[in-house]
Amino acid sequence: MAQPDTDGKKKWVYAFAPGSAEGGADMAELLGGKGANLAEMATLGLPVPPGFTITTEVCDAFFAAGNKLPEAFKADVMQALDNVGDTVDARFGDDKRPLLVSVRSGSRASMPGMMDTILNLGLNDKTVEGLAALTGDSRFAFDSYRRFIQMYGDVVLGVDHGAFEDILENFKNLNGFAADTDLDEESWREIIADYKAAIEREHGQPFPQDTSEQLWGAIAAVFNSWYNPRAETYRRLHDIPDDWGTAVTVQAMVFGNLGDNSATGVAFTRNPSTGEREIFGEYLPNAQGEDVVAGIRTPQPLTRKGARDAPGTSLEAAMPGAFNELRQIFDQLERHYHDMQDVEFTVQLGKLWILQTRSGKRTTEAALKIAVDLAAEGLISQDEAILRIEPTQLDQLLHPAIDPSADHDLIAKGLPASPGAASGEIVFHSEMAEALKAKGKDVILVRSETSPEDVQGMHAAVGILTARGGMTSHAAVVARGMGRPCVSGAGTLRIDTSAGTMRAGARIFKSGDIISIDGSTGRVYAGKAKMLPPQLSGTFATVMEWADGARRMKVRTNADTPRDARQAREFGAEGIGLCRTEHMFFEEGRILAVREMICAEDEEGRQQALDKLLPVQRADFEELFEIMAGLPITIRLLDPPLHEFLPHEDREAAQVAAALGMDLMRLKARVAELEEFNPMLGFRGCRLGIKYPEITRMQVRAIFEAAINAQRKTGQAVRPEVMIPFVAYRREFDVLRRVITETADAVQRDMGVEIPYDVGTMIELPRAALRAADIAGGPAGADFFSFGTNDLTQTALGLSRDDAAPILSNYLEHEVISTDPFVTIDQRGVGELVKIGTERGRAAKPDLKTGICGEHGGDPKSIAFFESIGLDYVSCSPFRVPIARLAAAQAAIKRREAARLRASPEQE
Amino acid sequence: MAQPDTDGKKKWVYAFAPGSAEGGADMAELLGGKGANLAEMATLGLPVPPGFTITTEVCDAFFAAGNKLPEAFKADVMQALDNVGDTVDARFGDDKRPLLVSVRSGSRASMPGMMDTILNLGLNDKTVEGLAALTGDSRFAFDSYRRFIQMYGDVVLGVDHGAFEDILENFKNLNGFAADTDLDEESWREIIADYKAAIEREHGQPFPQDTSEQLWGAIAAVFNSWYNPRAETYRRLHDIPDDWGTAVTVQAMVFGNLGDNSATGVAFTRNPSTGEREIFGEYLPNAQGEDVVAGIRTPQPLTRKGARDAPGTSLEAAMPGAFNELRQIFDQLERHYHDMQDVEFTVQLGKLWILQTRSGKRTTEAALKIAVDLAAEGLISQDEAILRIEPTQLDQLLHPAIDPSADHDLIAKGLPASPGAASGEIVFHSEMAEALKAKGKDVILVRSETSPEDVQGMHAAVGILTARGGMTSHAAVVARGMGRPCVSGAGTLRIDTSAGTMRAGARIFKSGDIISIDGSTGRVYAGKAKMLPPQLSGTFATVMEWADGARRMKVRTNADTPRDARQAREFGAEGIGLCRTEHMFFEEGRILAVREMICAEDEEGRQQALDKLLPVQRADFEELFEIMAGLPITIRLLDPPLHEFLPHEDREAAQVAAALGMDLMRLKARVAELEEFNPMLGFRGCRLGIKYPEITRMQVRAIFEAAINAQRKTGQAVRPEVMIPFVAYRREFDVLRRVITETADAVQRDMGVEIPYDVGTMIELPRAALRAADIAGGPAGADFFSFGTNDLTQTALGLSRDDAAPILSNYLEHEVISTDPFVTIDQRGVGELVKIGTERGRAAKPDLKTGICGEHGGDPKSIAFFESIGLDYVSCSPFRVPIARLAAAQAAIKRREAARLRASPEQE
Repeated sequence: MAQPDTDGKKKWVYAFAPGSAEGGADMAELLGGKGANLAEMATLGLPVPPGFTITTEVCDAFFAAGNKLPEAFKADVMQALDNVGDTVDARFGDDKRPLLVSVRSGSRASMPGMMDTILNLGLNDKTVEGLAALTGDSRFAFDSYRRFIQMYGDVVLGVDHGAFEDILENFKNLNGFAADTDLDEESWREIIADYKAAIEREHGQPFPQDTSEQLWGAIAAVFNSWYNPRAETYRRLHDIPDDWGTAVTVQAMVFGNLGDNSATGVAFTRNPSTGEREIFGEYLPNAQGEDVVAGIRTPQPLTRKGARDAPGTSLEAAMPGAFNELRQIFDQLERHYHDMQDVEFTVQLGKLWILQTRSGKRTTEAALKIAVDLAAEGLISQDEAILRIEPTQLDQLLHPAIDPSADHDLIAKGLPASPGAASGEIVFHSEMAEALKAKGKDVILVRSETSPEDVQGMHAAVGILTARGGMTSHAAVVARGMGRPCVSGAGTLRIDTSAGTMRAGARIFKSGDIISIDGSTGRVYAGKAKMLPPQLSGTFATVMEWADGARRMKVRTNADTPRDARQAREFGAEGIGLCRTEHMFFEEGRILAVREMICAEDEEGRQQALDKLLPVQRADFEELFEIMAGLPITIRLLDPPLHEFLPHEDREAAQVAAALGMDLMRLKARVAELEEFNPMLGFRGCRLGIKYPEITRMQVRAIFEAAINAQRKTGQAVRPEVMIPFVAYRREFDVLRRVITETADAVQRDMGVEIPYDVGTMIELPRAALRAADIAGGPAGADFFSFGTNDLTQTALGLSRDDAAPILSNYLEHEVISTDPFVTIDQRGVGELVKIGTERGRAAKPDLKTGICGEHGGDPKSIAFFESIGLDYVSCSPFRVPIARLAAAQAAIKRREAARLRASPEQE
Repeated sequence: MAQPDTDGKKKWVYAFAPGSAEGGADMAELLGGKGANLAEMATLGLPVPPGFTITTEVCDAFFAAGNKLPEAFKADVMQALDNVGDTVDARFGDDKRPLLVSVRSGSRASMPGMMDTILNLGLNDKTVEGLAALTGDSRFAFDSYRRFIQMYGDVVLGVDHGAFEDILENFKNLNGFAADTDLDEESWREIIADYKAAIEREHGQPFPQDTSEQLWGAIAAVFNSWYNPRAETYRRLHDIPDDWGTAVTVQAMVFGNLGDNSATGVAFTRNPSTGEREIFGEYLPNAQGEDVVAGIRTPQPLTRKGARDAPGTSLEAAMPGAFNELRQIFDQLERHYHDMQDVEFTVQLGKLWILQTRSGKRTTEAALKIAVDLAAEGLISQDEAILRIEPTQLDQLLHPAIDPSADHDLIAKGLPASPGAASGEIVFHSEMAEALKAKGKDVILVRSETSPEDVQGMHAAVGILTARGGMTSHAAVVARGMGRPCVSGAGTLRIDTSAGTMRAGARIFKSGDIISIDGSTGRVYAGKAKMLPPQLSGTFATVMEWADGARRMKVRTNADTPRDARQAREFGAEGIGLCRTEHMFFEEGRILAVREMICAEDEEGRQQALDKLLPVQRADFEELFEIMAGLPITIRLLDPPLHEFLPHEDREAAQVAAALGMDLMRLKARVAELEEFNPMLGFRGCRLGIKYPEITRMQVRAIFEAAINAQRKTGQAVRPEVMIPFVAYRREFDVLRRVITETADAVQRDMGVEIPYDVGTMIELPRAALRAADIAGGPAGADFFSFGTNDLTQTALGLSRDDAAPILSNYLEHEVISTDPFVTIDQRGVGELVKIGTERGRAAKPDLKTGICGEHGGDPKSIAFFESIGLDYVSCSPFRVPIARLAAAQAAIKRREAARLRASPEQE
């Protein structure tokens, strides 16, 4: 809040200078984010260029008065400006030692680039000469002046910036100059004259030579920019109220180009690539910040150590005083901010000025090391260390990556559907992928889109590339589940499977050509890209261990194969939350029996086929139970529509008919009979088992025989969880629970072993969520709920995952949604259903186990939501298990923190 | 509750006799439904055969004692039996005037046919001779005796009834008898001897000659039948608790075959076909009830008037005393029961006995007349009259019907998908249907299933028959909307469109063969069936008028065409609740422009095609606005997936490509591009308009230009309601509301007329129901919600309507559901979403208009639910408007009644 001045007037202006500031970090409401931060840095004693902040209350007064600056505050500003001049030995408007200032906006919330900024204010025809003399660099002085005129003309006086660009372009053309750097002092003088003439012509008034007039104009312009369309749109999108207004910060300009005892640079307090505790960064002697950006001169290293690997004298050697001051400031900053900092600094005539400090960006590896080190140094707690890591970043560590420093031949860009990178020969057919893999080749399976029939081929491939489908298309989901890199929806590629070609613009790639894909970026390259292998450091293990100690929710994995299960256990999975039995059905040697079962004329025929499937399915489960060694496994009964298993192309149908000794027409008739308008909403899930209980019986027998065998072998108690999919009505659950119980009882009797087991259901339909109390309640209700948020999202939103990609991209464009609802759960819609289902289920059965097995189980934002509604576990694909462990820990820490704050509001 | 007797013992037995009864209609808990009703009839003074009821408490005691009758109550029974004998001048076990009784079960809730009954109890080797002497009909007496032995042997002694049937069959075969009626007294005597031998052999004990022993055995058997599997299943399905138990009623048998002054008959107090107030029915002199059923003798009319049209002497003439007594009793019954009664009576030796009275079944026409007359006679109120009509019965009146009295050649049975009947030539192609219609032929369109491309053909046909699809398949929904009779899902038919044949078993029907379908029963006949035309009586109008006065909800119609709109207004629709603009798109002369629009390369191309559609769409709307003359019309923006409009067969695709001057491959590519895995969850609804706002602009322009033109023409103020379909997010609504507002403003400016309008949305996705407050709230939220319960059912249940038929039939079989959720709303699932949507929407916007436009809008049970949650209106297909008006009135009356009861619980 604004403090009344001694004479009762409100305080309009808050000054800051090294070692002292009016206001501090907690006054962003009044001073804006920037002003508050500068005040804090100043209070810390950092050598920030002095300045002052004009409060948001002045902004209010400005608009209340009809876009007029209150006269009363001008004297305060002039006084503050004098104090600034004293600090830097300069004076505003002075010909000899002119004080130049920047004028910037500063809202309570960050609105990067949305409002206006003016630099070098205070230059005029006279002070520019002073600056030239002072710096000994006339060219720099006049270039600065023309920049200021241009900026001021555009922002304050409303002269179209095109006018200035035209003048400069014309001048360069007339004089044969290519770059701005070709222009000398004289050239800039001429341009300045033209600029001033343009302003007088367009604006009707000359460019103001009175530096005070310049200042009032600039302050008013910044205030007015609060209502520019760019800023208004930004506020609407980010729910920032109009009446917050903006503060204005006026700060002395400092120059790193005043000779050899001046410099400018950027530094990190620790190594942002490795996380090592060492000063890292670069500087340019006798230069301004723009010179670094322009890239004309090669920056030099900061430290002697750094100079061993890079050319040029280090700052440490060239300006030991400034360097030592910088080093001390870095320690101070880390102690204050408790994090690695990214600092911009300028040395002006030997004096160090800190322009900005903020948390530094870093690689995942560095993030882990810094967090662990900061905790070891006592600067942060373990909980804080956990919170410092962005969970999705871990992906980088778990997969090989394409070396970003190498040159690659980019041919297309799709969606980063499954992380990791791979190089291999193009193949267009799944069978070919398997055949080539058998020969030891690395292949990339390239398809317009994939279907369940491609699963074996995807497994055989080192990577998958599709032209159609989104982040949650079949290709993407299966690839993530398998841990295969995948780029999906690379829409510019034209894939002709029958011709065996892939067109990328004018280029044509054929079967056998080598390409590389980067599933973390969606990029596709011609040829073999240079790879970086995955590396899991000790700090990774430390952070995971801390996370496991902090989280409440268990983390399971979605795994259908021994390979997935092993991978997931390596990554720390605490069980299998979803084992999809149908994936097993597609494997060679089984699919034929599955097809025989589907095409059977009667129950007897089905039973014959099921008898063939029983031993293979049992063997699959047995291996899974052995690998998971007593950890819980939720096995879902057959779910997908049966026609997914049948051949849809004539050639294949003929082969299958021959193999089954079946009339081709009858096979085709069965395929046609099972075809559906909307298979997602069709004959699938529990509907299959209710119609053909013999399928359920076979699966349950396989599960229990496998469980008992595995238990005998490993000595670990096994407790199978049998999951009934796609339930909407309690009675569906009852019908199948009875089949399960009868079969399980029979197996236990036959084998003479009793094992405890649970029967639960997937909650993946809105009706199931609403009727959760029915489904869990009473005797023999569901023992567990596993929320199938993929299908729940499809049904709640009325959006087919396989058809969603073009719709979602249009919706992202129109800001209907901000994130893909198949990636991050739609909390307010789908999330409410999960919440309702959990609450009602638990009200009916307090010890109901609840978890999630949709794609959202591996998404940190979604995991935070699941923590907030108290689910017992999340289950995700193997490669997301570490991410989920970390995200679950963060969610739990934040929830505890929030609970603590609620419990003791007075403490805060 | 059982009253203690004077000596403190519980009262086990409640007697009844004409003019007096212990207990009454309100004691069903103790006496069972039957016992309570008999008590009530007796109390009224009706001449019911005397008897007594053994309470459910005896049943409890029976089971508590291990299936033993309490000794204490036997004396009471024998005393009651003596009293009964006194009343009818007979004695239990007496050789001369034997009292025969029936022993029947009677539960608190009706459980028809689930438990056991024994007739003619009291016959033995001696009393049968007395009965023979008394009736002068030995054959009758011995036939009755052998029936009793058979029934008793089966029910009480547990002898397999097959044993008795074998004896009878053998006897008939040996003696060359064809029918039971061929057997004389001697034959029955022989059979009785064989029956008794069979019992002694199977049961190990002789058939009991002691009539008391017979009675105790029969009572115990009835009690035991409470736990027979049939009864247990029935109770489970109807939630009847096991511990209710059953009462047992013992009642004197009376005989209408004791000579010429005896008779038996059935009468209605009013004419059940026409509703006329006249005694209606028939009787047989000197006969038992079985004789009427056996159909050997032709019954005679009751009244002299009836005798004018039927052969035989009337009861009125033959037995004037009994007839007059009957007439007085009928008046008394109607005054007491306030309804037309169906009465069974017997005259025994000149004395009239009433065996049963209940509300009589009647035709719809009679139901209307009786209700109106009873109200006019002051016997019931108008509200009660309204409640007396089963709304769905009205369907019979609104469509022609197949004459049930004529013989027809039934060839298949499907679902009664759209009521009414039709005869016509078989056609298999929609184009052929149109061509033949143009030649004046009546055709039945026969398809495996229909798609939107068939709409014109369906319109041209007089009826539709499909082999696939349920009550809410495309064929069914469109047919109901059009008022075309439809039989869907006639699964035994094999339709081969290319061969032009329909196989029904071994019979083959070809194009041009005449068939008839009855959409009210699902029956399909070969040849032209005899039809009854629809007739709307004055009483229909009266009931509708009363209903309109009683209901709270408005009734609108779903209508897309002027024909539908006119029909619906005739049936009393108060507006259009759903006008689907896409149906207009399929009409000839438009579909090409629609296809051009869909296949356009860019917005400009789309706009060119839309410019062609604008005038036709405007003309459609204009006619609708004129017909509805100021009544509200909700127009839904384009909803279905675009590929529904494109040709899918090669031949048609080539034609379309030629007509559009478009490359065939490009057309096919576009078709492929728009194809979706799950079109129901795909690129449709508001997603179309957000991607292609120019389509929305065209439609909105057409709506507003039409509205202003119609307003000018009719002078009636028009207030269009523009409906945005398939909304899940508020922002979708906002994006399209802006397009609508801008276009509507432009039209109003252009035409210089301002008209008020509303913009609302269909709530047809679970997310929309949950986020209803977002969608309705704040400035420019939705002005109305129309619940699209078809799609809401599909998404909430995860069940595609077009694929549901086989799943639902399996579910009905397994009792997962009791009614098709697409016909009657799933209250506990989908209904909760409608309720949530209504509550949250109204909380955010109190004056939000709410209605329903799914198929459920025409279903009485669903309408009752919509009344209970306070929707403002329902909208249904034109032919269901009268049904909805009546159902809405009934729902409102019941709701008011319930509210009244809640308000004054003490009164009741």
